[in-house]
Amino acid sequence: MTPQRRAAASRRILILTADSELHERGQLKYARITSSIADALHERGVDDLTAQLAANLGLLAFRVAFERWMKAGEDEPFPPFAVTALNDLRTRAAQFSDP
Amino acid sequence: MTPQRRAAASRRILILTADSELHERGQLKYARITSSIADALHERGVDDLTAQLAANLGLLAFRVAFERWMKAGEDEPFPPFAVTALNDLRTRAAQFSDP
Repeated sequence: MTPQRRAAASRRILILTADSELHERGQLKYARITSSIADALHERGVDDLTAQLAANLGLLAFRVAFERWMKAGEDEPFPPFAVTALNDLRTRAAQFSDP
Repeated sequence: MTPQRRAAASRRILILTADSELHERGQLKYARITSSIADALHERGVDDLTAQLAANLGLLAFRVAFERWMKAGEDEPFPPFAVTALNDLRTRAAQFSDP
C-alpha cells in the first residue's frame, strides 16, 4: 500500500465502478479471499464458525480501510487506516453481542 | 423454507458444487443481498459501518443456518436454525471485541 499503488488503485476504482463485469470480478475475488482466510484459520484449529466470522470481519475491515485511505490525503500511509477500521468494527461487533 | 423448498435446495446445492460458473453466480447473489441489506439499514439511520457489519453478519448467519438445516432431518423447520446461527455468531462477535 504505497503511494504508487494508491494511484493505480484510484484509476482501478474508476474503471470498476463504470464496468459491472469488472465489478463482479472484484466481488468474486473478495469472496474467494474470504473463503481462503476462513480455511486457513480453520486449518490452524479455529472452529469453523469463528473462522468464517473472522474472515468476514477481516475482509470488511480491509475494504473499509481501503475506501477511507483512497479518500485521504495522498501521503497518508495505509496501516493506520487498517488498524482504525478493525477497531471500529470490533466496537460495533461488541454492540451486536448484547441481546 | 418448507420441506418442498428443502428438496429443491438440496438438488440445487449438488448442481452448484459441480458447476463453478453457477457457484460464482451464487456468490454474486450473496454479495448483492449483503449490499442491499446494508443500504436498507443505512437508509433507516444506521451508521454506514454498523450497517455493513450487520449485513455481513446477517448473511453469514443465513448461510450457516441454511447449511446446518440442509444436513438436518427432513422435517426440521428452518427458523430455529436461523435463531441458533445468529446467536452463535453474536457470541463469537463478542469475543472479537475483547482486545
